[in-house]
Amino acid sequence: MEIPSTMRASVLRGVRNVAVEERDVPAPGPEDVLIRVSAAAVAGSDVQLFSTGRLRGTPINGPLVLGRTAAGRIVAVGEQISPERIGELVALEPLRICRHCEQCRQGRYNLCETATFLGTPGCDGVFTEYLTHPADFVHTVPADVPISAAVLAEPTAIALAALHKADIRAGSKVLVAGAGPIGLITVAVAKALGAVDITISDLSGERLQRAEAMGATTTLNMARSGIVIPPAHFDAFVECSGSAAAIRRGFPAVRPGGHVVLVGRGADEVALPITLMQNRELTVHGSFRYANTFPMAIAMIAAGRVPIDALIGERYGLDELDTALDPTRATTGVKAFIDIEERFLDI
Amino acid sequence: MEIPSTMRASVLRGVRNVAVEERDVPAPGPEDVLIRVSAAAVAGSDVQLFSTGRLRGTPINGPLVLGRTAAGRIVAVGEQISPERIGELVALEPLRICRHCEQCRQGRYNLCETATFLGTPGCDGVFTEYLTHPADFVHTVPADVPISAAVLAEPTAIALAALHKADIRAGSKVLVAGAGPIGLITVAVAKALGAVDITISDLSGERLQRAEAMGATTTLNMARSGIVIPPAHFDAFVECSGSAAAIRRGFPAVRPGGHVVLVGRGADEVALPITLMQNRELTVHGSFRYANTFPMAIAMIAAGRVPIDALIGERYGLDELDTALDPTRATTGVKAFIDIEERFLDI
Amino acid sequence: MEIPSTMRASVLRGVRNVAVEERDVPAPGPEDVLIRVSAAAVAGSDVQLFSTGRLRGTPINGPLVLGRTAAGRIVAVGEQISPERIGELVALEPLRICRHCEQCRQGRYNLCETATFLGTPGCDGVFTEYLTHPADFVHTVPADVPISAAVLAEPTAIALAALHKADIRAGSKVLVAGAGPIGLITVAVAKALGAVDITISDLSGERLQRAEAMGATTTLNMARSGIVIPPAHFDAFVECSGSAAAIRRGFPAVRPGGHVVLVGRGADEVALPITLMQNRELTVHGSFRYANTFPMAIAMIAAGRVPIDALIGERYGLDELDTALDPTRATTGVKAFIDIEERFLDI
Amino acid sequence: MEIPSTMRASVLRGVRNVAVEERDVPAPGPEDVLIRVSAAAVAGSDVQLFSTGRLRGTPINGPLVLGRTAAGRIVAVGEQISPERIGELVALEPLRICRHCEQCRQGRYNLCETATFLGTPGCDGVFTEYLTHPADFVHTVPADVPISAAVLAEPTAIALAALHKADIRAGSKVLVAGAGPIGLITVAVAKALGAVDITISDLSGERLQRAEAMGATTTLNMARSGIVIPPAHFDAFVECSGSAAAIRRGFPAVRPGGHVVLVGRGADEVALPITLMQNRELTVHGSFRYANTFPMAIAMIAAGRVPIDALIGERYGLDELDTALDPTRATTGVKAFIDIEERFLDI
Repeated sequence: MEIPSTMRASVLRGVRNVAVEERDVPAPGPEDVLIRVSAAAVAGSDVQLFSTGRLRGTPINGPLVLGRTAAGRIVAVGEQISPERIGELVALEPLRICRHCEQCRQGRYNLCETATFLGTPGCDGVFTEYLTHPADFVHTVPADVPISAAVLAEPTAIALAALHKADIRAGSKVLVAGAGPIGLITVAVAKALGAVDITISDLSGERLQRAEAMGATTTLNMARSGIVIPPAHFDAFVECSGSAAAIRRGFPAVRPGGHVVLVGRGADEVALPITLMQNRELTVHGSFRYANTFPMAIAMIAAGRVPIDALIGERYGLDELDTALDPTRATTGVKAFIDIEERFLDI
Repeated sequence: MEIPSTMRASVLRGVRNVAVEERDVPAPGPEDVLIRVSAAAVAGSDVQLFSTGRLRGTPINGPLVLGRTAAGRIVAVGEQISPERIGELVALEPLRICRHCEQCRQGRYNLCETATFLGTPGCDGVFTEYLTHPADFVHTVPADVPISAAVLAEPTAIALAALHKADIRAGSKVLVAGAGPIGLITVAVAKALGAVDITISDLSGERLQRAEAMGATTTLNMARSGIVIPPAHFDAFVECSGSAAAIRRGFPAVRPGGHVVLVGRGADEVALPITLMQNRELTVHGSFRYANTFPMAIAMIAAGRVPIDALIGERYGLDELDTALDPTRATTGVKAFIDIEERFLDI
Repeated sequence: MEIPSTMRASVLRGVRNVAVEERDVPAPGPEDVLIRVSAAAVAGSDVQLFSTGRLRGTPINGPLVLGRTAAGRIVAVGEQISPERIGELVALEPLRICRHCEQCRQGRYNLCETATFLGTPGCDGVFTEYLTHPADFVHTVPADVPISAAVLAEPTAIALAALHKADIRAGSKVLVAGAGPIGLITVAVAKALGAVDITISDLSGERLQRAEAMGATTTLNMARSGIVIPPAHFDAFVECSGSAAAIRRGFPAVRPGGHVVLVGRGADEVALPITLMQNRELTVHGSFRYANTFPMAIAMIAAGRVPIDALIGERYGLDELDTALDPTRATTGVKAFIDIEERFLDI
Repeated sequence: MEIPSTMRASVLRGVRNVAVEERDVPAPGPEDVLIRVSAAAVAGSDVQLFSTGRLRGTPINGPLVLGRTAAGRIVAVGEQISPERIGELVALEPLRICRHCEQCRQGRYNLCETATFLGTPGCDGVFTEYLTHPADFVHTVPADVPISAAVLAEPTAIALAALHKADIRAGSKVLVAGAGPIGLITVAVAKALGAVDITISDLSGERLQRAEAMGATTTLNMARSGIVIPPAHFDAFVECSGSAAAIRRGFPAVRPGGHVVLVGRGADEVALPITLMQNRELTVHGSFRYANTFPMAIAMIAAGRVPIDALIGERYGLDELDTALDPTRATTGVKAFIDIEERFLDI
């Protein structure tokens, strides 16, 4: 595959101001690979940056390529990387870590304090044709996996990180709050881990229908009156909505000795039921991205354990990001996809 | 359901000497239930006791009802147990524990030193029409689960106990040695837990074919020459054969940081590769029955995660135990079943 | 030792109404022992019941013997218990559990839903001369341990349960909030577990001085202005005050990947920093009494790892409970003791 | 501190052929520091290489600087390292890892397959005046810690890694086999972790006396006849001798549910009691060096929890390595020290 000298990248220049620019194709450092991005997906952080110019308070400082969720092919490698990797289908783990701090040395590299995250202020993301990235954070995907499925390794890795904290295993009963993309994948992964009661709550009947397609055994439409979440019933509560009401509603649903995992982003502070947490000895985990869960996520996707079709929403080109990132449209599809390499449009 | 005053029980009186006797139906103690046994399955320990009169060296002392694996219905309850349980379909956890020793208090009741185990010297088993047992070791099975499937809760609980020690989870690669009933169920449960590479070794092509039906992704017929188990490849090795050769062959197949779980019974001593265990920091677990895995096992069976049909072998009546327990026949079927209640014969 | 037919017990009849009554000495059930109580200590729950007639909302229903923390000697045993235990010095684990529910079977018996707790509404406590209790919850203490030290096994078991959740080990840095008896013992136990930075906060300089005697390496008097708890510094925060302000102040002090353990009882709800919990992947544990920590607590006390003298406050007789339980006096001493058996008064 | 251009290093040229050479002082890479080595200690691997020219079968290929255990001071830093570190007292973690493989990313960097280890074939060690090493594997030691104590961080890190696997905590009962330097430090660290029964076995009364000075509560001289290790008594068995006999003797001493940790190096294969491992559900861990335990080791040493004096044996100069590494002398002292920087000779 011939590598051109320039490429197209979609650049955020200000609030709701995104445009395709021509940029030089970067050269990989000694431990990096160069990736031809095939397709990407839109994450909540992309929409927030596009519509407000900020991510949780931090403003963009100058032009920024958005995007954190992508798959592609390795087209060149740095001098320390085996050229045999050229041609591999890959999923990106969109993190660059220091490898030297205590957290990195202990394997919790998601907590590395100097890590940079693709598509956030200061670090260009994946809405571009080419990208260099450390080879060990570019994960091999079996060649027969569809590109769209490979793209979903990133949210699947988020769900796996949360479900491990929740200690979900064969026979588990789990309550998921929020039927957005992360909540839906959490449902599918919980099923793949052997959970047998997978209850999900949301305010939208349409989203809950999708949850059923992903494997939810019970759906609770909290927009209706009189819906009761069974108390002290679930082994774990995985919060994916970020809603303070949902967070507070979930705690009493967990059995003594159970787990609560907080994944969804929302209010900085929420009043939590301390006495209940004590009487039931609940364990509450904050969950932040992923560490070491990409290989598992890819293995599950390759084994067909995550139903992909129900997760793929509208598809856009690289020059349609202003539409794809529009917050009013972003929630209609399950996961908006960006087709970056032409020939993958039909996969 | 009317309870008769007498019942039929199959009693082992000596080596290869088993006969149906008429006995009084027992009355449940205050915390017990009375179970009408519907069906049972033959375990290796039953065959060993029948053919040698001993179980790992311990002789039977007087007549003994064999059998440890059974399902049935609750027909009466002790005074401290809710009568609402009458009529429930149940699987027996064939253990009576002291509830007071340090192991019981810590939840490792399988290690209780004064526990008695059904169908072993000194404690009558399940090859009988009626049986009393502590209510909390008689586990409710959803009413729509077939009796034969409920019977399989016991070996499924063994497999779950082993796979938890092996830390099998989504994306795991596991090597199983031995395609007998426990090895086969281990394959099925590993798949249900999300394992994606499930390799099984055995000396019989027929048994390995069954393993494929249970979900094995690779089978290794060690009776053939030149078969190589990929070195340092598996996250865990679950030994279900009891063969010293199989035990020794499995260790080098485990990756650094991986697990070995010893389930199969065989030689008391085996030469193990100490230096390899150190260099790779392997963790080796002895596994003994189950503690707290029956509820998970039943949930998995009820959810259809364990393929039952491939596990059910010949079916016998209570008066045909001399045939069912014959060691030369016992291995032809996957799991020999004993139909004890007439009306369940066809299920 | 001759056992009399009647005994003295201190009975709470209503708010601030406590008096010594003569009662029959109970006979031990088959799995119980009869204990001659030597000494007891006052817990916060005793003071709350004495001064309000309620414990966390639940009223006493009729006369109640208070007290949950005691040591004594076995003077008689039930028929299933070895008479060799007669004469043993013992510490009481003041819990009676069902032994049959899922929590009991899994070894988390502190979460048993039908458990009764000594000295709480419906279950007489230890401020009495004799008491029967299940033998396995009456823990042997080496004969050379002073009675007062044996009494402290109960709060030490609370501290151990919390510190295990906090994953405190050699080299750990721990922040403790609240220098009451539980906070002080937590300091001592943290030191015995190998913690090297043990910082404690409180509003009282006098209490903080006692914390230094117990092994605290830094004391923070939050009543002073300008005191700063070092941010993101501690491996764990063990909250023993129950104060909402202290709870909220402690979270930012924990490093990424660290633990928060909530021991102290207070407001039912507290606003917690959700985003911080996520960004740092904090794990928050509710802690409720103890399960399986008495043997460790006694071993540590016997080995001299818990400095007893700094914890012993005023000493009272069984007929002085109205003074000992007075909430205005209760906080002056570290732990008020009740000497129940005359001959131990001087130990 | 002025850095000279050349330095003295002790170089192994062949079997029992070691001599001081003059070499260039190396310059630190961007993420390295340059260390002035103050003192070092002799490890078993140094003695083995000196006396046989091989380490577990691998021959030296050309001249090799031996030594893996050292402390010193940072005298220069690479461009990415804060110059504020210059002057720090430090302990070396003698490992260079790839930081990219799965094991490194998961925090088990001791299992990194391309790691190099100081003082082993292909990688020069610490018996030299100056050394460059990655800054994050050069651990800060508080300035008031004696150099000799800082040197002992390395074996203390080995003991901590083993004791974590053994789950040693407050009140634990532990059996240690082998009273060599690692066994002795294991005793001291077990005590610091709260263990209350620390039994050690060896064939030498002199070594066992030292173990008592380190905190052993019971010593077993296996050279005497009739010595019985109490069966099923210990929570864990930490094997530090490498002797097949000691390994086999220790297993029956572990209680059901307990741990065995294999630290000592010896025979590649040992016959282990499989049935016992199953009946008691023992967990057997291979232990290999350390990952992430240096900070804890240094904290414990700085807090005075490891008795240093009992561990320091003969002291030699850099030009006396032929004596220090003589296998016939190596076992007389507890740990032979090499004083490399003149001015530290008296500390």
